[in-house]
Amino acid sequence: MDRNRPTDLRDARDVVRYDAEADVIVVGLGIAGSCAMMEACDRGAEVLVLERAGGGGGTSANSGGLIYLGGGTPVQKATGFDDEPEEMFKFLVAASGPAADEEKIRPYCDGSVELFHWLEAQGLPFKRSFYGEPGMESPTDDCLVFTGGEDAAPFDQIARPAPRGHKPQVEGKAGPFFMQKILEATGRRAASLETDTLCETLVVEVDGRVVGVVARTAGEERVFRARRGVVLSAGGFSVNSEMVARHVPQLEGCNPKNATEGDDGRGIRMGQAAGGTTLRMDQAEVALPVTIPHRLGRGIFVNRLGQRFINEDTYYGHIGVEALFGQDGEAWLLVDESSYEVNMVGMQPAFVGETIAELEEEAGFPPGALQATVGLYNRFAERGQDPLFGKRASMVQPITSAPFALLDARKEHCFYACMTLGGLVTRPGGEVVNPDGEVIPGLYAAGRTTALFTGRGYAGSGISLGDGAFFGRWAGRSAASASPV
Amino acid sequence: MDRNRPTDLRDARDVVRYDAEADVIVVGLGIAGSCAMMEACDRGAEVLVLERAGGGGGTSANSGGLIYLGGGTPVQKATGFDDEPEEMFKFLVAASGPAADEEKIRPYCDGSVELFHWLEAQGLPFKRSFYGEPGMESPTDDCLVFTGGEDAAPFDQIARPAPRGHKPQVEGKAGPFFMQKILEATGRRAASLETDTLCETLVVEVDGRVVGVVARTAGEERVFRARRGVVLSAGGFSVNSEMVARHVPQLEGCNPKNATEGDDGRGIRMGQAAGGTTLRMDQAEVALPVTIPHRLGRGIFVNRLGQRFINEDTYYGHIGVEALFGQDGEAWLLVDESSYEVNMVGMQPAFVGETIAELEEEAGFPPGALQATVGLYNRFAERGQDPLFGKRASMVQPITSAPFALLDARKEHCFYACMTLGGLVTRPGGEVVNPDGEVIPGLYAAGRTTALFTGRGYAGSGISLGDGAFFGRWAGRSAASASPV
Repeated sequence: MDRNRPTDLRDARDVVRYDAEADVIVVGLGIAGSCAMMEACDRGAEVLVLERAGGGGGTSANSGGLIYLGGGTPVQKATGFDDEPEEMFKFLVAASGPAADEEKIRPYCDGSVELFHWLEAQGLPFKRSFYGEPGMESPTDDCLVFTGGEDAAPFDQIARPAPRGHKPQVEGKAGPFFMQKILEATGRRAASLETDTLCETLVVEVDGRVVGVVARTAGEERVFRARRGVVLSAGGFSVNSEMVARHVPQLEGCNPKNATEGDDGRGIRMGQAAGGTTLRMDQAEVALPVTIPHRLGRGIFVNRLGQRFINEDTYYGHIGVEALFGQDGEAWLLVDESSYEVNMVGMQPAFVGETIAELEEEAGFPPGALQATVGLYNRFAERGQDPLFGKRASMVQPITSAPFALLDARKEHCFYACMTLGGLVTRPGGEVVNPDGEVIPGLYAAGRTTALFTGRGYAGSGISLGDGAFFGRWAGRSAASASPV
Repeated sequence: MDRNRPTDLRDARDVVRYDAEADVIVVGLGIAGSCAMMEACDRGAEVLVLERAGGGGGTSANSGGLIYLGGGTPVQKATGFDDEPEEMFKFLVAASGPAADEEKIRPYCDGSVELFHWLEAQGLPFKRSFYGEPGMESPTDDCLVFTGGEDAAPFDQIARPAPRGHKPQVEGKAGPFFMQKILEATGRRAASLETDTLCETLVVEVDGRVVGVVARTAGEERVFRARRGVVLSAGGFSVNSEMVARHVPQLEGCNPKNATEGDDGRGIRMGQAAGGTTLRMDQAEVALPVTIPHRLGRGIFVNRLGQRFINEDTYYGHIGVEALFGQDGEAWLLVDESSYEVNMVGMQPAFVGETIAELEEEAGFPPGALQATVGLYNRFAERGQDPLFGKRASMVQPITSAPFALLDARKEHCFYACMTLGGLVTRPGGEVVNPDGEVIPGLYAAGRTTALFTGRGYAGSGISLGDGAFFGRWAGRSAASASPV
């Protein structure tokens, strides 16, 4: 197969016969595709969904099942957290670093409560309860949790803290349940679904308009016509090792991948072939759950030079991104007798010493470096202060009770759960744009096939499902509303 | 003008008449375009050069005029530096961080001596002399200089150090002289040159082959046909504020730009419209010349937390990249009475104190942070050691002679000379490829319109001219050797 562009595209004039047609074709049935499909159906469009796996769910079904919602959801209100879209917006912009996509963050915050109600209407239950251990989904069926370091420095000074990670009402990891409920809801629509069908390329008119998809089922090519639009919602590129090596080489050696085999970047490349441009291909979510349970954050993270680099009480995703991208994947957690316990991923101390000096030497830190760091930390910790990073007072305690231990949180030795965040550039309505920012007619995208709106880094757990659901719906609406050709 | 893709391209079937034709069309006459043009001419191709400015030179003529060459050049040999392609390769790969493009670095090192001889044959003179002050071009007409931290940690332990920055024989900044000589050489070829001619889009056949260029001269559209190929060598995107904000937002507020108004990313976007993919759009060269003269490196750089982040004796480009991308553009140089002097950019101390504690408080560092850093540094500096970063012994001295001073090297307050490094992905032969890595027939690119081969960061001064010259020649050869259509 010669995949040079535009032969990488299928010229509509070369299509002899379409195997089927629909108003809207949705490529991939994870959270983004499911939401796009439902909205398009609900606007009266005839929808065809093409899914490469044997059934829907994708990486969404393999997630923790948290969705980031705020601005005053019923769960926030019931549990006494006062939130507003503006506070949520301020947090998301701040947590996104430079280049936050405010054009998307604004409607996402403004429409978050509505999305909550819509999800409940689809059959996804959320208990009106709060779970106090921050950072991850609850092991119980409780709902609300702090998942972005909203109540940690520096964000607690930028926006009024509120928990926004919402977990559906099920015990433990909620991704499978989340997508089960969503897929049941899609099943209540009259759309057609073709599983085991891998999309390969887009069909375009001579003027560049996307009018269909070429796919393959059991080795046989099939061509589908889309009268109004194609929505690419086929996941990211976490398992495409060549794309990872090229765009985000730091991810090499990080495990596990929050991905399925479908995350091979095909949706992104199909969109590029049609003229779409990409963004944030160098970025990733990295969850480094060393400080779960959260009270392990009473220790201090240091890099290979023994320097601290973050407030340890913040979201483990901020810790992971900083450890991987800012510290070259070289991080250690220093704890003492009073703060140590076995964490979520079962880490045992890599080094133990009766003094910091002994530990420093054993672990091979530059002489004096770890001692200087601990000396400075302890000096203020005695007063409950952390002048460097502003860790909250309740988590600040001197590191003085021997023995001392180092947990090895280096990339090769620890759990760096990761996922690519880069992809096609879309307008809020899901329209894929070219490098000049102009819309490619007939082409829409959502979910991890698109660049996440948060700019650099990953603002909090639940953002990717939130982005997929919210802008998946918008993409479905846009495609359904487009003029037919 | 509707620039949606593929209407962003000009369909060859819609071209009624070509204003001119040639075997090879070169877009932009900086170092890359000049070298492409000369090689294509020397292979017997009829060449047409289109340049948007009133004459050639581009950003290359605005550079320091250093070119990074090694592996045993006549200047290296005459000045007693033993270098080999393998040592140069090891250095460039190490200095490139992850994702170094070895497929290009290898031939660049192997062909570096040949490139030196070719440049001399074009009329560019290089004095057989070494200039001992590292990091920047000599103020004299001397040639060879360390421009990549080759003799500083950690690179001095990875590859045998050799200076590789070559400056043509002229006093002071050599960029204008460099390009004057190169343009004289291009003038000895029989190519056609159209100046004041802005290229807008590519002409493509229905099968995706690039066969020409649409340009504009004095408001009038002109269409040029290329029988064998088009070479895009139109610079980077440093002055396109929208592209900068989107892809490398850290550059906002950095000045000066190593750029001309031609660096608006047009060449990159033209290539993307034809199906080309991009890489390293998030990366930049950042030269932060605070430690020039070099002996200012006897001070220590600290970030906003008072932590050191680099060995101060290294290349100011490594310092700039680390300060901007690693430390959010927040860097200070701490010096004492014995190490202070006015540097190249004329910096005066922002804060002065009789003690480190006083300075720390004045400048607003977290209490104790700067004192802890200086305490640790001094403890080993007394023995000429720098256990954290391995600064060379001759540059390590305790910071003890009051008064102490802080030079403000923060982005908004200092000289961050920058240039974008991302662009189209090409094979070593200059062929532009699509996201699947497949060649787009008829399309070539070189220089800053392409992604620099060094992966993350910028290995050393002279790399960009070197890359432009070397792979510009290869692109010109490839285009000249392609079958005509």
